[in-house]
Amino acid sequence: MSNPITKDRRHFEDLRVGEVIQLGERKLSKDDIISFAKEFDPLPFHLDEEVAKKSLLGGLASSGWQTAGFSLRMLVDEFLSKVAGMGGLGFDNLKWKRPLMKNDTLTGTITVSSLRRSQSNPEMGIVVLDFDMRNQKDQQVMTLSLTNLVEVRDPSAPIKGDAA
Amino acid sequence: MSNPITKDRRHFEDLRVGEVIQLGERKLSKDDIISFAKEFDPLPFHLDEEVAKKSLLGGLASSGWQTAGFSLRMLVDEFLSKVAGMGGLGFDNLKWKRPLMKNDTLTGTITVSSLRRSQSNPEMGIVVLDFDMRNQKDQQVMTLSLTNLVEVRDPSAPIKGDAA
Repeated sequence: MSNPITKDRRHFEDLRVGEVIQLGERKLSKDDIISFAKEFDPLPFHLDEEVAKKSLLGGLASSGWQTAGFSLRMLVDEFLSKVAGMGGLGFDNLKWKRPLMKNDTLTGTITVSSLRRSQSNPEMGIVVLDFDMRNQKDQQVMTLSLTNLVEVRDPSAPIKGDAA
Repeated sequence: MSNPITKDRRHFEDLRVGEVIQLGERKLSKDDIISFAKEFDPLPFHLDEEVAKKSLLGGLASSGWQTAGFSLRMLVDEFLSKVAGMGGLGFDNLKWKRPLMKNDTLTGTITVSSLRRSQSNPEMGIVVLDFDMRNQKDQQVMTLSLTNLVEVRDPSAPIKGDAA
C-alpha cells in the first residue's frame, strides 16, 4: 500500500518535535520587488521608489506576501521536497515584523513545533511548522505557524496521546 | 499635514464594520498553476498532472499560496487601491478548505469585521478584513483574516471605545 512516489522520503514517524530546519538565503533586488508587486500587490510603495520614500516604510519595500512566498519556497527546498507531504491545511498567526527592503537578504529557520496523528484519517499526520524569518542583520521580518499533512508510514500503528 | 498621494482616497473614518467588498473573478489555467509552483511551491502535485492524479488532491491543483496571492490581488484592485493604506500587520486563521483545480475560477467577498484606532499612533487605524474565497460552484476554497493599517483623516479626533 506504500506510495511509490513518496516511499523513500521522510514520513511522519521520522519527524521530531523541536527539529530545526535551517533555510537558505534569498536576496531581493529592486526588480524582484517590482515584478512581484505588479502581479499580486500593485500598491505604490511596492512599485515606485520615489513614492515609497515618502511612505511609512521609508523606501522600496517588498510585499509582505512576497516574503511569505519566498519563505514557502525555502521550506519546499529544505524540507517539503524531502518528506511525504500531502498538502497544507492552513496557517495562523502570520506577523510582518518589518518589511524586506531593496537588496535585503531573507533567511531564517523553521521548527517542528507539534506532531499528531489524525484520528479520522490514520494515514495522515498533522505537522505544525513555526517560521522565524530574518534579514541579513538578524532582525525578525516575519513569523507564522503552518499546518501541513504528512503521510504516516504505518497507519495500522496505534494512535497515542494528543491525537486530533 | 494630509498626505498628497492619499488625500482623495477613503480613510479610516469612511469605513464601516460589516461593509462587504465583492471581488472579481480569476480563472486558473494549467500554465498559471505550473508557473507559480515552479517559482514558489515546486511540489509534484502542483507541477505534474500525472503525479497529481495519484495524489490526495486527485488532479492538478494550484498551490494554496497562489490562491492567497490572487486573493490579495483582488483585494488591492477592489479595495486597497482606493483607501489610504499604510501596509499590512499580518493575518490569522488562514484555512485552505479545498484546492483550486485546473480551470477553476476564484472569486469571493471580503468583509470589514473590525475597525479600531491605534492608541500609540493616533494617525493609524487598524482594519480587520475577513476573506471568504470561493470557486465557480460557490464552494469555499479559503478563508483568512487580514489586519491592515489605514490612515486616519483627523488624528486629533478623540479615540473611542475599543481602541488598541
